[in-house]
Amino acid sequence: MNQSLKMLMVFLNEVDRIGDQPIYEVLMRRLRKRDVAGATMFYGTMGFGHHHRLHHKGLFGITDDRPITITVVDTEQKIHALLPELRSLVPEGLMLLLDAEVVGGAAR
Amino acid sequence: MNQSLKMLMVFLNEVDRIGDQPIYEVLMRRLRKRDVAGATMFYGTMGFGHHHRLHHKGLFGITDDRPITITVVDTEQKIHALLPELRSLVPEGLMLLLDAEVVGGAAR
Amino acid sequence: MNQSLKMLMVFLNEVDRIGDQPIYEVLMRRLRKRDVAGATMFYGTMGFGHHHRLHHKGLFGITDDRPITITVVDTEQKIHALLPELRSLVPEGLMLLLDAEVVGGAAR
Repeated sequence: MNQSLKMLMVFLNEVDRIGDQPIYEVLMRRLRKRDVAGATMFYGTMGFGHHHRLHHKGLFGITDDRPITITVVDTEQKIHALLPELRSLVPEGLMLLLDAEVVGGAAR
Repeated sequence: MNQSLKMLMVFLNEVDRIGDQPIYEVLMRRLRKRDVAGATMFYGTMGFGHHHRLHHKGLFGITDDRPITITVVDTEQKIHALLPELRSLVPEGLMLLLDAEVVGGAAR
Repeated sequence: MNQSLKMLMVFLNEVDRIGDQPIYEVLMRRLRKRDVAGATMFYGTMGFGHHHRLHHKGLFGITDDRPITITVVDTEQKIHALLPELRSLVPEGLMLLLDAEVVGGAAR
């Protein structure tokens, strides 16, 4: 039960696209295809950063397209194996890795 | 001030129920009753995982009922004491524990 | 690439104000001015805690003004330098610091 996992956080923008598809959709589909243990996508309300487009400036230089955060949960090994692929999909998206301990729910 | 705490993240679905009540409501009420230092509930936009029902399939097998994440902040001792109760309420919900340091705000 | 960073999480309420301005706006503007690497603001759906006003009681004592979480990402040094300023802006807001490793995206 008390397995050690990693939580990957990917920071994107609603408007980021690969061809005619939103990156977040491409990314969620890919994560599902790669059978990661869990992935959840959240809309933020405002944000900024090196990982955000800055040409859509709203109030005080904060972008008016919504930020998106995707959290991905799996083993360190699985997530590290996925990273090259994810980096090629979201070269500008900030990706953070956090340590987590599973204390409940279905482990793989 | 720089106290060491734990952040518990519980992953649920909007449609998960205990009897006729949404689990997230039961859980928030219980956490409040147990006087945890803080709890916040967030809706995600899409998600999948062992902790999500998969029979509500939408686009590429991703559920169309919204994922919910509840973050709970308290001492390691308090959160560990709560875990058996939380596990019995959400046997299928993935629960992750992360290390955090309090650097501002009201400590208990 | 695999740089070690900190993720700061600030827990606020929609209704918290400095003068006539929502604290979350003041805080986001300040973080932008201080040129932090990234900041994202999320609305929660319900929450409670020492960092929340409790006089707006809704269902089972949970506030009906929405909780807000702001995540800030930067180096430990930069975030620690910002903390006194942030604490003076949000004296009641719980602030947590988590370890994170950058595994993709633009580093500073």
